Amino acid sequence: MTAMTAFSVRGAPIESADELEARLRAIGAARYHNLHPFHRMLHGGELNKGQVQAWALNRYYYQSTIPIKDAVVLSRFRERAIRLEWRHRIEDHDGDAAHEGGIARWLKLTEGLGLDTAYVESTEGILPATRFAVEAYVHFVRERTPLEAIASSLTELFAPRLHEERIAGMLSHYDFINPEIMTYFTRRLEQAPRDALFALDYVKRHATTPAERAAVCNALIFKTNVLWAQLDALHHAYVHGHIPPGAFVPDDAR
Amino acid sequence: MTAMTAFSVRGAPIESADELEARLRAIGAARYHNLHPFHRMLHGGELNKGQVQAWALNRYYYQSTIPIKDAVVLSRFRERAIRLEWRHRIEDHDGDAAHEGGIARWLKLTEGLGLDTAYVESTEGILPATRFAVEAYVHFVRERTPLEAIASSLTELFAPRLHEERIAGMLSHYDFINPEIMTYFTRRLEQAPRDALFALDYVKRHATTPAERAAVCNALIFKTNVLWAQLDALHHAYVHGHIPPGAFVPDDAR
Repeated sequence: MTAMTAFSVRGAPIESADELEARLRAIGAARYHNLHPFHRMLHGGELNKGQVQAWALNRYYYQSTIPIKDAVVLSRFRERAIRLEWRHRIEDHDGDAAHEGGIARWLKLTEGLGLDTAYVESTEGILPATRFAVEAYVHFVRERTPLEAIASSLTELFAPRLHEERIAGMLSHYDFINPEIMTYFTRRLEQAPRDALFALDYVKRHATTPAERAAVCNALIFKTNVLWAQLDALHHAYVHGHIPPGAFVPDDAR
Repeated sequence: MTAMTAFSVRGAPIESADELEARLRAIGAARYHNLHPFHRMLHGGELNKGQVQAWALNRYYYQSTIPIKDAVVLSRFRERAIRLEWRHRIEDHDGDAAHEGGIARWLKLTEGLGLDTAYVESTEGILPATRFAVEAYVHFVRERTPLEAIASSLTELFAPRLHEERIAGMLSHYDFINPEIMTYFTRRLEQAPRDALFALDYVKRHATTPAERAAVCNALIFKTNVLWAQLDALHHAYVHGHIPPGAFVPDDAR
């Protein structure tokens, strides 16, 4: 059990890079959004199509903000080598003339779910809470130290297992899901581990004091909150039925 | 019925200052958080003490951020007259050596509810969604136009009626509430109308094109979202029982 509040680690100072890695992994084990009840419902086939639409619509705002977030991270580094390493994250999401990127793959998912792409791209129907959480991530990497900006990406350490569970669960439980519209996740299975290991190595080498190691942990906690709060908002709106004014209303909830 | 999405007004251009005021009042009538089910429960005596504590604890983060937000607004104006007008908002909340301000009055409420003041001030137990929504407000007034920064304060137009309902409802329904710990609200009954009328007059005079009037409306919609999202998060955590990791757990929910 890692002692922490909603926002920060507590307890003894973190004295080494290996201790830091152990704390980061403990934070993931306690706080990553694979544990959220909405994900258990999503992967277990307990949601209806409208609820899955709401999830994909809102998550599009997160996905489409990631290259913006990564451009801000890139802008924090004078070291060309780090900029080169980080740039491929923007490329992975935005693609180019010859290759589709992660955002285009996400739009395949929303289109496959029957959502109008122009409506999805407008982001006018998402939950305000989605916008607040995602924008908080962009502000975080702009306002905190470059070390914390990199540390906040470390949720990727825990993503592959979640994506494997999601692909298997959604394909087996929903007749409106097929492998073609799930390519975002299959592709991320290759991309995320490389990115995560770079970031983990970076924070282990550059956080050299207990205060810096605590800041790295708190950046990861912050990021788990960004992800968790998005699912809380979806759960409240589309499972408990409290859709806020003006937000997307699925056909089956009208 | 005012046509709008979760984030913006739609429909015909707003052609005059009076039309603008009518639209702003229609947005308040449709979107202000007096309509939120959590407030209906709070004012109707349907919450237990732990749920009222959670509300006051989280709302402290909003209250204590308001002078920071107002300092950012003040910093946007080169006109001394506007800075002088806006400065009294900071004074109202922060007080001075001789006068207690709104934040001190809010701490009377949390203390009266049995919460430890150091814990409240630490803000370590609030919901991450509270932090995201409140920080979004600070970022908004920093990043948008000065006109939009002022417009986002216009929810104060609708506050007095809500506060009257709150004072009467909470005093009559809860044996742990007494007039002394409700002075924050009684004081705001005098302060909010003055502030709101200044801001309303300002936006009516300075929004001179349909695009600027739409931006003023959207700033008010944004602010109603900031308030609504905080109550959604409280409702999800403390009424439906999905308290996120590390957040405040009332004694009666342990």
